[in-house]
Amino acid sequence: MKLKRKNRIILALDLLEEKKALRLVERTKNYIDAIKIGYPLLLACGLGIVRKIKKIAKKPVIADLKLADIDNTNLLISKKVISSGADYIIAHGFVGGQALRILNPEKTFLVVQMSHKGSEQFINRQTKKLCAMANQLKVYGVIAPATRIGEIRKIRKWVGGVILSPGVGAQGGDAKKALKAGADFLIIGRSIYNSKNPERVLKYILNSIQPV
Amino acid sequence: MKLKRKNRIILALDLLEEKKALRLVERTKNYIDAIKIGYPLLLACGLGIVRKIKKIAKKPVIADLKLADIDNTNLLISKKVISSGADYIIAHGFVGGQALRILNPEKTFLVVQMSHKGSEQFINRQTKKLCAMANQLKVYGVIAPATRIGEIRKIRKWVGGVILSPGVGAQGGDAKKALKAGADFLIIGRSIYNSKNPERVLKYILNSIQPV
Repeated sequence: MKLKRKNRIILALDLLEEKKALRLVERTKNYIDAIKIGYPLLLACGLGIVRKIKKIAKKPVIADLKLADIDNTNLLISKKVISSGADYIIAHGFVGGQALRILNPEKTFLVVQMSHKGSEQFINRQTKKLCAMANQLKVYGVIAPATRIGEIRKIRKWVGGVILSPGVGAQGGDAKKALKAGADFLIIGRSIYNSKNPERVLKYILNSIQPV
Repeated sequence: MKLKRKNRIILALDLLEEKKALRLVERTKNYIDAIKIGYPLLLACGLGIVRKIKKIAKKPVIADLKLADIDNTNLLISKKVISSGADYIIAHGFVGGQALRILNPEKTFLVVQMSHKGSEQFINRQTKKLCAMANQLKVYGVIAPATRIGEIRKIRKWVGGVILSPGVGAQGGDAKKALKAGADFLIIGRSIYNSKNPERVLKYILNSIQPV
């Protein structure tokens, strides 16, 4: 299933309980373009959760594996997750191109910058080089946080692929500014699943970003 | 369960089938000090595999998660895996100290260098800084490949904790030299589980490294 740009919102399903997770997918599916899941949910519920999510949402699932191993292990893990129904995976660029070339670029997003404070210690100093590598590998897109608008603008100049931006809402990023700066999709988690009325939150965000 | 230095060999259980994996543990348990497992096995068999391995081996299990996320997600994943019986986890240092401070340092190993060719592009340029961070965080130990003996020698000077070295055997590292240079344990996978006689391979390695 291909990622299509319509609502420009990706739900980060950072939950641990299957029932809660699937209920949230059901409630939000009409306001989002894809669902991002990670290891906490995969380890708690098993790989079967991917197909259950897709059956409800009929939207692509992005597995946020933050792959960061040698080529052979990266391939083993991504094969396993993609064969379970995931449409895209997220990998770390800092392990270098040789460990990533083995992945299917059309199904891969590379982390080129992170949002937490400690990320300035190592990874965020390499963003330009990581973007160049993303272009070389011809990956589908990159992950760059919405918390630093100036950085998204630079990354938009540096990479050709799609940009997914986490950090809107709970982490303080501004949705409209992030899209204007060049992000294609916003990844939003906490402010949706911590709300008693996730539909209302999503409608509010959708309203606030239209027209960009 | 604490890691104890006796045979100085850690079995890397990079297999996907539960039966095969548990049989290998049974056959090798007397020659090894711990078992390292990763996501391929965890995703294929579920978290229950950890306790099954420990029941047979009565040795510590190190979960090679290559954790590389923000603090909250790192904590969620490591909690899940440690509560399933894993004694140690492996995390990446390059996400920065702030994302790692949340982990229990006594149960954490940090990757400070990798063995594949592409690792020179980013991560291996930061080894000295990553070692300094490992000391600051007071983690139990670090991962440094046996494929570059000179690097192990440097890392031995830079870090106070235990050094685990993958890369012996299939990747070309020399067991005895790695231990002499400062590695505390060798992580060995392929040359054991690809052999028809893993016991014989282990006896051969044990013989070749005694006395260091």
